[in-house]
Amino acid sequence: MTASATSITSSLPTGFDPNRTYRAAVIGAGSGGLTMAIGLAGFSHEVVLIEAGPVGGDCTNVGCVPSKALLHAAAHSIEDPFGYVRAKRDDLAGREEVEMDEHDTIHFLRGRARLTDQRSPHVVAVARPDGSEVEVRAENVIICAGSKPVEFAIEGMPSERVLTNETLFDLDEIPGRIVLIGGGAISLEMATAFRDLDVEVHIVELANRLIGNDDPLVSSTIQAALEARGVIMHIGTSIERFDAATNTVHLADGDQIDGVDYALLAVGRRPRLDGLGLDVAGVDHSPKGIVADDWGRTSVERIWAVGDITGNTLTTHGANAIGRRAVRAIALPYLLTTGSPRAMPNAVFCRPEIASVGISVEEVASKNRAGRRRYEVHFADTDRGYTDGVEHAVVMVDVERFTGKVLRAAIVGPAAGEMIGLFTMAIDHGIGLRKMFGTVHPYPAYAQAIGKLVDDFARDTYPALPKEWFAMIRGRIFDRFRRRVSR
Amino acid sequence: MTASATSITSSLPTGFDPNRTYRAAVIGAGSGGLTMAIGLAGFSHEVVLIEAGPVGGDCTNVGCVPSKALLHAAAHSIEDPFGYVRAKRDDLAGREEVEMDEHDTIHFLRGRARLTDQRSPHVVAVARPDGSEVEVRAENVIICAGSKPVEFAIEGMPSERVLTNETLFDLDEIPGRIVLIGGGAISLEMATAFRDLDVEVHIVELANRLIGNDDPLVSSTIQAALEARGVIMHIGTSIERFDAATNTVHLADGDQIDGVDYALLAVGRRPRLDGLGLDVAGVDHSPKGIVADDWGRTSVERIWAVGDITGNTLTTHGANAIGRRAVRAIALPYLLTTGSPRAMPNAVFCRPEIASVGISVEEVASKNRAGRRRYEVHFADTDRGYTDGVEHAVVMVDVERFTGKVLRAAIVGPAAGEMIGLFTMAIDHGIGLRKMFGTVHPYPAYAQAIGKLVDDFARDTYPALPKEWFAMIRGRIFDRFRRRVSR
Repeated sequence: MTASATSITSSLPTGFDPNRTYRAAVIGAGSGGLTMAIGLAGFSHEVVLIEAGPVGGDCTNVGCVPSKALLHAAAHSIEDPFGYVRAKRDDLAGREEVEMDEHDTIHFLRGRARLTDQRSPHVVAVARPDGSEVEVRAENVIICAGSKPVEFAIEGMPSERVLTNETLFDLDEIPGRIVLIGGGAISLEMATAFRDLDVEVHIVELANRLIGNDDPLVSSTIQAALEARGVIMHIGTSIERFDAATNTVHLADGDQIDGVDYALLAVGRRPRLDGLGLDVAGVDHSPKGIVADDWGRTSVERIWAVGDITGNTLTTHGANAIGRRAVRAIALPYLLTTGSPRAMPNAVFCRPEIASVGISVEEVASKNRAGRRRYEVHFADTDRGYTDGVEHAVVMVDVERFTGKVLRAAIVGPAAGEMIGLFTMAIDHGIGLRKMFGTVHPYPAYAQAIGKLVDDFARDTYPALPKEWFAMIRGRIFDRFRRRVSR
Repeated sequence: MTASATSITSSLPTGFDPNRTYRAAVIGAGSGGLTMAIGLAGFSHEVVLIEAGPVGGDCTNVGCVPSKALLHAAAHSIEDPFGYVRAKRDDLAGREEVEMDEHDTIHFLRGRARLTDQRSPHVVAVARPDGSEVEVRAENVIICAGSKPVEFAIEGMPSERVLTNETLFDLDEIPGRIVLIGGGAISLEMATAFRDLDVEVHIVELANRLIGNDDPLVSSTIQAALEARGVIMHIGTSIERFDAATNTVHLADGDQIDGVDYALLAVGRRPRLDGLGLDVAGVDHSPKGIVADDWGRTSVERIWAVGDITGNTLTTHGANAIGRRAVRAIALPYLLTTGSPRAMPNAVFCRPEIASVGISVEEVASKNRAGRRRYEVHFADTDRGYTDGVEHAVVMVDVERFTGKVLRAAIVGPAAGEMIGLFTMAIDHGIGLRKMFGTVHPYPAYAQAIGKLVDDFARDTYPALPKEWFAMIRGRIFDRFRRRVSR
């Protein structure tokens, strides 16, 4: 996995001066770190970018990029799918390195960084691959150390058969039968790819439904869709042990799965906090990550944290979005750091895709029931869903009454990751369903499901405007009162 | 093709009274007519819906629905694809009939309608299938008679081998080699489907590029994409004659195509004006269609025209959008008929898809060059385009400088028909690229190409705001002056 990073050697970068104070030291060259380094370099700031592993971080090397490449290779019957994945991954990582080289003001430093001192928290010690240590001085330190998969041993199973996203893509052969542990994004995407590769796929999820932080209708829809494609579900249970003699996985509910080649651990991710010297430097953090605000600001002045390390966002586009705000806060400090972050959509690229945007399911549920409405349209009830025989696909939205302000939207269906943008824009620009009424969607795009949903809202709202208005006001008053009480 | 309509007999509908004056007589039960009838019935208006052919019009019976069903069947190797298409089509037409039956206030009248008299233009004579004629009196007459394919004979080719979209879907066997005449939406979609069915496909287009009313970059991209899938292009030429002895098509440029089974005429559509009695009733029209405004209003008070018959829109969603406005104008006349129609996107469901929205390519070109900018992002330059090896896909946009107001956007690529909605919303709600800056798209959705395009705009604009502002103002002044001169 580090083959792609060989061109960056362990010698000190040209022009790097240990005595100089740089504009920023960026710890980690993943999605967050690259956004920060390239963003600040765009303002001609001198940046030291420190990374022990390959450039591109998890996304390029063990995350989004190889998983999407595998999904593509599997869906299109590309020969040697894992070879395709590695070729794509290594080539893209190489490109990202070239991009680093092109910026004169980014000084790439190979090594492992840690904060050293509360009195001078802007001095970063970097342990170099050759065993030496250099100090980097910077006005700003930006911690983008990312996350790693939660790992645990499975009783009786040899560790080389327990995969994570960090080892999965180095497989040389397609397994015959695999058990995916966890029912989140990684499992759903890999279940899709492996089914295309004719692998027998089992998903073991401890909770009572897949993708538990999303809407229950999302869970049931994607479960039905994957089951229709042959994925075998074990919901509400866990792995007890593995019998190596028979290659049998024994589950807590008494079921067993015979002839298992591999298990994939995909139960969650945790921030890479170890060894960063956060306690020494006095940076507030918890097991969930470094405490940071919408601008990436931590408890220590001019120490920033962006991406998975904060636990605030766990996606590439999340690290990128907050990273861009941090770049603005550092490079243009005379612009007031005002404005909330844009709406943050999420997408899972299983088939059908899943996407969502808005406040969480729990936040929706906590809002006064009188003030909101819920709409759902199944793709099967649109003409295209019908011609294409789409069975397990639905768009759902929770909105404020009267205005139709979008609280949360979720889509399971073909191109959900592209369609969610309509709701992202609606939230960003305060366009409720009432204003969205009449928007023309090309016939027969799947997006007509969204048009139908807006029509349903209009049918409830327009003939009863005063009633809807009072309900909206009542909801707002209750919600304000509840917030005040809970403070 | 009329088998689907058998349940509606030629007997007069229950409750229909020739002496009564109905709220509306709707001529044609296609996309426009159904929108009008169902929309007015939603306001409890009594409507007579007159149709000689099958319910659902071209869209359901010989247009969007069967073409999408064939695309789906071909892409997913469904056995007997034409059988699948007919089953889907007939079932959907059946459903639409049931929908008609469910409305107590819609009286379906089988027959061919014509206006009869300038002095009483709201009396419609209906020639019934049994040869009788009934008169329908209505406060409003809405003409939604649709369009039909432009047809011509090919010298030497038996007429049963010259198909149009009206006969194509009744094929019983998959042809070996087909020539598609015309390079528009129908040809591009059918080329996609037939290639999936392993048919040898030739497109013959008289103009110098495919889909000539769209952006030249759209034309070249879709041409390259289809050629990569084996479609053989004959651009800038036409068919001279057919040699039935050898099944050879001879082209004007001297080329010939041997062993041709069928030709598909797809060079355009013309409104079904004949026999409507437009001259008798004094309704303004030209060969392009009935002259009607954004509300469907014609030159005669309370005679309306919606859909293909007007030439204003030639799509199902276009007929639907204008139809909804006409419903509002009829049912809620006390609401002022103000407000422009929403932005009208278009989509072609070939693979990759094509979609566009905004003013026409010519209108963009006529705007002052100083006041606008053009941006293009190829999907290949996004990470997902890269992992998926997407070669022929691009998003392009013409915008006003400084504000980034979207003049026109076009996309060729996977899910273009879903992605175009972002630009439709942007136009509807006056969201320029400047306001769109920072919108978060899920990584690695294709929509990231749109994010990249907005970043490119920001890179030009933010460091030079005064310059961009003056350019924008200069463009606006020039454009206003030009419009005044051309009046």
